[in-house]
Amino acid sequence: MKQGLFITLEGPEGSGKSTVIKLIEGYLKERNIEFISTREPGGIEISEQIREIILNKNNTAMDSRTEALLYAAARRQHLAERVIPALEENKIVICDRFVDSSLAYQGYARGIGMNQVMEINKFAIDKYMPNLTIYLDIDPKLGLERISKNKDREVNRLDLEKLDFHKRVREGYMILLKENPDRIKSIDASRDILEVFDDIKKLLKNILK
Amino acid sequence: MKQGLFITLEGPEGSGKSTVIKLIEGYLKERNIEFISTREPGGIEISEQIREIILNKNNTAMDSRTEALLYAAARRQHLAERVIPALEENKIVICDRFVDSSLAYQGYARGIGMNQVMEINKFAIDKYMPNLTIYLDIDPKLGLERISKNKDREVNRLDLEKLDFHKRVREGYMILLKENPDRIKSIDASRDILEVFDDIKKLLKNILK
Repeated sequence: MKQGLFITLEGPEGSGKSTVIKLIEGYLKERNIEFISTREPGGIEISEQIREIILNKNNTAMDSRTEALLYAAARRQHLAERVIPALEENKIVICDRFVDSSLAYQGYARGIGMNQVMEINKFAIDKYMPNLTIYLDIDPKLGLERISKNKDREVNRLDLEKLDFHKRVREGYMILLKENPDRIKSIDASRDILEVFDDIKKLLKNILK
Repeated sequence: MKQGLFITLEGPEGSGKSTVIKLIEGYLKERNIEFISTREPGGIEISEQIREIILNKNNTAMDSRTEALLYAAARRQHLAERVIPALEENKIVICDRFVDSSLAYQGYARGIGMNQVMEINKFAIDKYMPNLTIYLDIDPKLGLERISKNKDREVNRLDLEKLDFHKRVREGYMILLKENPDRIKSIDASRDILEVFDDIKKLLKNILK
């Protein structure tokens, strides 16, 4: 059976993922390429219920491994209900963050261990690894400055972590880049958005041909 | 640091686990041995929230891997909040069902694969494998007959599975027995309860000395 392409976007806070995704959507629309654009939990009822437990402020006793398992569970359900059906209809799937985020944020920056977090995510995603992962690289300091200037953007829990945490997140991504040179492509996101998107278009042309 | 003993009870439906656990509790009390007796989710708030998602009848779209990850998450939290603190206080922990149930029921009988379910459970339990697992073995047909006679016992979702499913559960346990001969001890639970408990007392004496 022919199958669609699974493309994920990754990067630290303020790397410009949202803007890039909008440009990718426009690029695919112009070319009449069937796609869906999504992010976890993506309105999937069961995944939303799981997120509620993770984000519930009263759950202060939450163990970090429990949290990682819950993220993996929410990911699995979003994958099963939204991503896999689209791929089986031969669509392109654009997903804002996926397994690499868990590895960089929880596995590396939070210190659970990337290999350990990978084990439960392997179970969650089974054979559905992304065909292409676009990593928007930016110095965390610059990324956080960008966020602070953007008043339309809601500040989330992760934005408030100290700079040191975001530096570790980037280190985590760097390890993933080294280990997955074929799948993950790094783009210098400190440049003007049009320059950034020029590079991304090359990646898209290459994988869509 | 000295640490308590972690003892789990396993077995198919109708194997007499509840009765055996009461007898073990009495045995430990008589000897003034400090213990806790528990089962998942065991009133742990976060684990109860997770169980609600698993058992919610409206969640018909639940993928079997999502379910397995949620069980592992609930297990982790119960372990972190109840089991580990008791072990660190050098207590005996008696737990009604643990990781072997997931392996036999979900891994083997439901067909996800025991190795795969073990991977996520390894993450959930980390180094806290039971010191002793007492497996109450019974022919599923006899077990289900026992249940149907016991009118005090609430019939649960698993009781209603077909006999064939319970046969597969037992096959799963048999594989676990073979793979873990030092940890898991099988007791013929088709006999009179006092005979069964005589064998269990030998196991307890041995591990408590």
